[in-house]
Amino acid sequence: MKLIRFGRPELEKPGLILADGRWIDVSDVIPDYDESFFASGQVRDLQEYLDTADGFRPVDPDTRLAPPLARPSKLICVGLNYAGHARETGADIPKEPVLFFKSTTAICGPNDDLLIPPGSVKTDYEVELAIVIGQKASYVPLDKADDFIFGYCLHNDYSEREFQLERGGQWVKGKSCDTFAPLGPFILTKEEVPDPQNLRLWTKLNGELVQDSSTADMVFGVHYLVHYISQFMTLLPGDVITTGTPFGVGMGRKPQRFINQGDVIEIGIDLLGSSKQKARNVVSLR
Amino acid sequence: MKLIRFGRPELEKPGLILADGRWIDVSDVIPDYDESFFASGQVRDLQEYLDTADGFRPVDPDTRLAPPLARPSKLICVGLNYAGHARETGADIPKEPVLFFKSTTAICGPNDDLLIPPGSVKTDYEVELAIVIGQKASYVPLDKADDFIFGYCLHNDYSEREFQLERGGQWVKGKSCDTFAPLGPFILTKEEVPDPQNLRLWTKLNGELVQDSSTADMVFGVHYLVHYISQFMTLLPGDVITTGTPFGVGMGRKPQRFINQGDVIEIGIDLLGSSKQKARNVVSLR
Repeated sequence: MKLIRFGRPELEKPGLILADGRWIDVSDVIPDYDESFFASGQVRDLQEYLDTADGFRPVDPDTRLAPPLARPSKLICVGLNYAGHARETGADIPKEPVLFFKSTTAICGPNDDLLIPPGSVKTDYEVELAIVIGQKASYVPLDKADDFIFGYCLHNDYSEREFQLERGGQWVKGKSCDTFAPLGPFILTKEEVPDPQNLRLWTKLNGELVQDSSTADMVFGVHYLVHYISQFMTLLPGDVITTGTPFGVGMGRKPQRFINQGDVIEIGIDLLGSSKQKARNVVSLR
Repeated sequence: MKLIRFGRPELEKPGLILADGRWIDVSDVIPDYDESFFASGQVRDLQEYLDTADGFRPVDPDTRLAPPLARPSKLICVGLNYAGHARETGADIPKEPVLFFKSTTAICGPNDDLLIPPGSVKTDYEVELAIVIGQKASYVPLDKADDFIFGYCLHNDYSEREFQLERGGQWVKGKSCDTFAPLGPFILTKEEVPDPQNLRLWTKLNGELVQDSSTADMVFGVHYLVHYISQFMTLLPGDVITTGTPFGVGMGRKPQRFINQGDVIEIGIDLLGSSKQKARNVVSLR
């Protein structure tokens, strides 16, 4: 099943993409794709609706796509989780997963504009596979980790490298600006992802292919990450784990290539669709 | 005004502490102290209720105190923000605020037990002044920062030093375990805090005074922090900023002294009350 949300910010509604590609509105079946939805197994209600409804409420495909879930309790990120990316940043391959958070206020729709923050000269892209958690998870054994995964979606972990690495302290400072976390176009339920460790993922910058790898190259796979993270904090239904980016970010290129106003960034992962963000500078300040 | 929440987890209700010390239930005036409460200025409804009600619904003072706000969108922490504490950890005094997040699942009531996580040998205390944000804040000028503060409360930033510093990567790993973020006993509205930079704050470990400093010793004060953090992320109503701990943590003592099962940790700040946590080991794992 492919879950979408659509409509303007603050007025977003849940929907689905049918097998034939049509978008439908399911807001009379499900209030929203939020913690309560994931916690209560309401996805079964959606399946029943699909199987039994006489007809569906269509959504105009020109409608804005919203992030495919309502604000989660947290957005947990894994750093340096592809060997090639660790090398290009000058870091060692981590012995244990490197964790950090992004502010959930950074979450936006898959095709919303990227807002380059004031003073930024090093805004960078990072295509990533995101895991959506399906139930409360604490001290999960490795062999049970899959039970706690609801599905997967596409994510761009935008990063301001100067804020992240040169302003003192922890990475969160360069990861949390508004629009730095496009999610979607949709969440694909895990049953439809036969092998999450065998998906091609790629980024194009103004049409040029700049990242092109496979989730097979992750240092720590999705099940290990759910197990590992749950040793340090409780994961809630709807929480999102982003699993790191492969080789090819702007910071690692020679010469370095960061994002400027007008640039178009397109990303994709096998089975999980693609998204496109146009960069523009933040102009209005208080 | 002193805002409290009370009752068992999942069934927590909003209340107030009156000037005479009585606890009252205000759940028929306000649904909860959540983002919507802080965003909409409903504190005025509380004031009107206090001024006009014929009588109040008392709360039994033996009831559990809950965290004084519902789960915020984020819990932003400032590291190394007292010179003496930076020195005791072997760090330089930061040139800019060091930021990290705690998982909001770590938030608990002020007097709930501290759960020492499995495998922990370096769980440590940190008394801190917490700021509660009153309205959405993005790129806030320094001279307007106070407008965005709703009030203040007491916080213990429990930290597992091995998870934080010796397990690879970012601090969040040692900051996010369940019960690692007691908040309260209450939120004091800012009008009743004449000078947030002149409050004594202290910790007792089994009755022995181990931290005893003043918020006057902060490297970066509360207004600067709100201004600074809002340059990197959008703060939402009800978000919590914890402002760092002074000298005297267990990691900095000679010899080091970490928390064991049965230890009692008591913390306090002028005007903001005190809280007490008893430590016990997590016993039941999946």
